[in-house]
Amino acid sequence: MPKVQFWYEFASTYSYLAAMRIEALAKAAGVAVEWKPFLLGPIFRAQGWENSPFNLYPVKGRYMLRDLARICAERGLPPFRLPEPFPQNSLYAARLALIGAEEGWGPDFARALFQRQFGEGAVLANKAVLEDALRAAGQDAGPQMQRAETQEIKERLKAQTAEAQALGIFGAPTLITQDGELFWGDDRLEQALAWTAKSAVKQ
Amino acid sequence: MPKVQFWYEFASTYSYLAAMRIEALAKAAGVAVEWKPFLLGPIFRAQGWENSPFNLYPVKGRYMLRDLARICAERGLPPFRLPEPFPQNSLYAARLALIGAEEGWGPDFARALFQRQFGEGAVLANKAVLEDALRAAGQDAGPQMQRAETQEIKERLKAQTAEAQALGIFGAPTLITQDGELFWGDDRLEQALAWTAKSAVKQ
Repeated sequence: MPKVQFWYEFASTYSYLAAMRIEALAKAAGVAVEWKPFLLGPIFRAQGWENSPFNLYPVKGRYMLRDLARICAERGLPPFRLPEPFPQNSLYAARLALIGAEEGWGPDFARALFQRQFGEGAVLANKAVLEDALRAAGQDAGPQMQRAETQEIKERLKAQTAEAQALGIFGAPTLITQDGELFWGDDRLEQALAWTAKSAVKQ
Repeated sequence: MPKVQFWYEFASTYSYLAAMRIEALAKAAGVAVEWKPFLLGPIFRAQGWENSPFNLYPVKGRYMLRDLARICAERGLPPFRLPEPFPQNSLYAARLALIGAEEGWGPDFARALFQRQFGEGAVLANKAVLEDALRAAGQDAGPQMQRAETQEIKERLKAQTAEAQALGIFGAPTLITQDGELFWGDDRLEQALAWTAKSAVKQ
């Protein structure tokens, strides 16, 4: 089955939209999804942004909220909630998701956590929230929380974020195909999956 | 028939994409389109940008080119060409399109000019290019070029750009529905048209 990499950031609202629908769309397209959590902060800082562009440009931030409200309603997602503050600290979430990507529970964990954050306004770095999402993904929360604190996982997340930057990723979500195409945004999900399926047929 | 306002900027690559397909999509949705040319420059400057964000953030600019190449190929448009320099000076084009919006030839003129610019790399402020586009829209080029230089048209374009800003427009293309919803980008065209058609049924 052809594969696509799904690079996502927990603090990113459009990563949430994509995370909630990518598996259904990928299944329909006959494509497998590799979930790749990473941190956008270091990449934004390299572009000279010390904050989310949605905060730096308030008119764009207000539009984003309306855009998300409309899309969540259309897709049957809970009414959109912006957590306080925005963006949230996604460091612990990403470390856990990295373990989950390896062990197979990453997508369930990510969806549970995204839904708590943007459907309920939960604080992403809150221990109880993270533990809830781990349990929703069938995990024993304590040991996974401990493993996320190890030097090994910390270093691996740094390496994964460096990989994102090396791939030319500048926002989230981003899809990378096996033939090296980069698609940015929830809006490009269908196109990236169709591209992946078509490239596979050609080979 | 329900109406939607289509706010576009000639120097904007995604305005080009939307301009080339909006009438066909609107017809299918049973929606009428009001073409509203405006200048994005003053609005960008008010946000602190002295240049296109695609120039300010080169990684985003490179992505935009690839994104446009893929979309143009998918939609059967000519291979995308970025004019030199980018963005182009769209002042004269917008003034002419404003006259055309009143007289009914605005959309034909806009499509002809967009295609010269982004399909052939033509210089937008070049007199011969503008005259060609006027003729493609069935116009006598000389008198329209003269009228575009009048104080009346200059002032009306300023007023139209101020109206865009007052509506909260921060990018192009933007669609505004009769019930005041703002949709940004070629990616939101289908959604804006569906919204317009649905709101009309409700009334």
